[in-house]
Amino acid sequence: MAEISRSWVLVQRPVGDDFDSALKLQSLPMPEPGEGQVLVRTLYLSLDPANRGWMAGPTYIPAVPLGMPMWGGIMGKVVESNAPSIKPGDIVGGFGSWSDYCVLPAADVNKIPDMGGLPLSAAQGLFGGAGGTAYVGVIDVGQVKPGQTFVVSGAAGSVGSLAGQIAKIQGARVIGIAGSAEKCAWLTDELGFDHAIDYQRENVRKRLGDLCPNGVDVYFENVGGAVGNAVVANLAKGARVALCGLVSQYNLDGGPVSGLDMLPVLLKGASVQGFILLDYLHRLGEASAKLGQWLAEGKIKYHVDITDGLENALASFKTLFQSGASHKGKMMVRVDSQAN
Amino acid sequence: MAEISRSWVLVQRPVGDDFDSALKLQSLPMPEPGEGQVLVRTLYLSLDPANRGWMAGPTYIPAVPLGMPMWGGIMGKVVESNAPSIKPGDIVGGFGSWSDYCVLPAADVNKIPDMGGLPLSAAQGLFGGAGGTAYVGVIDVGQVKPGQTFVVSGAAGSVGSLAGQIAKIQGARVIGIAGSAEKCAWLTDELGFDHAIDYQRENVRKRLGDLCPNGVDVYFENVGGAVGNAVVANLAKGARVALCGLVSQYNLDGGPVSGLDMLPVLLKGASVQGFILLDYLHRLGEASAKLGQWLAEGKIKYHVDITDGLENALASFKTLFQSGASHKGKMMVRVDSQAN
Repeated sequence: MAEISRSWVLVQRPVGDDFDSALKLQSLPMPEPGEGQVLVRTLYLSLDPANRGWMAGPTYIPAVPLGMPMWGGIMGKVVESNAPSIKPGDIVGGFGSWSDYCVLPAADVNKIPDMGGLPLSAAQGLFGGAGGTAYVGVIDVGQVKPGQTFVVSGAAGSVGSLAGQIAKIQGARVIGIAGSAEKCAWLTDELGFDHAIDYQRENVRKRLGDLCPNGVDVYFENVGGAVGNAVVANLAKGARVALCGLVSQYNLDGGPVSGLDMLPVLLKGASVQGFILLDYLHRLGEASAKLGQWLAEGKIKYHVDITDGLENALASFKTLFQSGASHKGKMMVRVDSQAN
Repeated sequence: MAEISRSWVLVQRPVGDDFDSALKLQSLPMPEPGEGQVLVRTLYLSLDPANRGWMAGPTYIPAVPLGMPMWGGIMGKVVESNAPSIKPGDIVGGFGSWSDYCVLPAADVNKIPDMGGLPLSAAQGLFGGAGGTAYVGVIDVGQVKPGQTFVVSGAAGSVGSLAGQIAKIQGARVIGIAGSAEKCAWLTDELGFDHAIDYQRENVRKRLGDLCPNGVDVYFENVGGAVGNAVVANLAKGARVALCGLVSQYNLDGGPVSGLDMLPVLLKGASVQGFILLDYLHRLGEASAKLGQWLAEGKIKYHVDITDGLENALASFKTLFQSGASHKGKMMVRVDSQAN
């Protein structure tokens, strides 16, 4: 086993979108697992907009300490275990770091079950946080009903692309908002969305007004800002907004945040419900079962956008915040080239 | 009976806070009730921030047509009736206009019951829209629980002052936000609020942080803008925002609306629920019964701010939008000097 493990270390809090100054790839001594801990060789690292929040300050979890490896969702193979429940060779998922190797409490990792012929990447691309968030947001928070009009922003992202398909399975009419013609074509032609709106080239508010003369019943909000307000302006009476993310706002430290206009929410008797997957962990079992069933039935598709090499994690992460970037679906880094 | 009835006529849509150009007092022929209608001598006219929305364009009701008397809640005495259910001399409430005399469909007016020694103004100052909105917002929408921290903005207004007292009766700790030291003293010394914050002189966000280290559980939102965002920044985990009004935003036609920052709503798993009294009319019976009981028990107080003379309605209305204006409680115009 190598004596050295590389990590992306948080050396300063990010200012705006300057992640190059915030994260540095460093070689560190191999971490050693203590009692009840396991040492994991990272296979895949999950890249998510929420990572930005963890860098910047306390959110629903404390901030990543300066000088420490950046936190992230990982999947990996156990190489050493000081806990009876986990054995070397086990494939596990958990909240690790942007590192070649991570030490995690055995109690906090979950063994990834046999994927039934699916590649391991499906555990992050379809199941796990992306699918769980999409499922909870559509079913528990959005509570979409057959025949309703469902709109999702960030629709080509990991959560948005699944959320739209789940709403479609529930019998809704589904409209996705994304940042390029190519993404929009993917939503309608590959994923079965009824319509897609390219916010870079179209007037979202007007187009939604044309597509939804009776208004938007459920809005799955991933982006905020101008796109969010264009949807809010089109809410139907009693509409529900499932507030999952505000990716357009995350890099505006200290600058003026673009809040959501509440007048349409007031006049329509609508609601906005913020949600964090951590509060719905008890729902992940059902979510995974349903997602697996729908995948087997050919009713849902997932897409993983895999970057090879831990050294390329930062460049890939930055594209999460670039309007019109080409990635689709779940952004992952294959840290170990042997991972399937 | 006079042959002439004065009305405030909407001659153009308001631009910003220029209500002088929008409304003109005109003498019009006495309106004549048709079949099933009643002619009412206006006793009291209710002045509410929502009136501004009805002038400006369609909301949850159509806009007031240009060239027509401005709409408003009125109470009056029936002088002529073409409907068997209503008799001359009956005291009724309804959705009338800013006029000496109104013609209303008999089916749309409600007879105001004997007030048991209370002045008629209590029907608008404690019961009716103000009390109903406060009751529904606290009980149905805010769902405040004993021991929770409840914050209300526009706290010295008709709805806000009642909402804070209702939350107090439910066992909450109550903090009001208002626009002058005098109003704040009234909230704490007369109405029993635990604390009051003068947003004209204090840093609302910091003061709330000091007063509520565990956050705000229920926020009754009447104003929006900077005050709204100062409260939202202090929401507790799972907080509820009862979105009743956004009076700081109503005059910003075409200008940049200050939306509510949704990041705290997201991170706290909080919710914002817009509500309109029209959707809760079935709750008014319970609201009035409870408000009457609490008044009799000395648990709640109401304040009416009465301007004499229809000709003074506009000047009084404008103060609803002036930060630090001196009015408290329910703004009313006594149109008939004989009204009690």
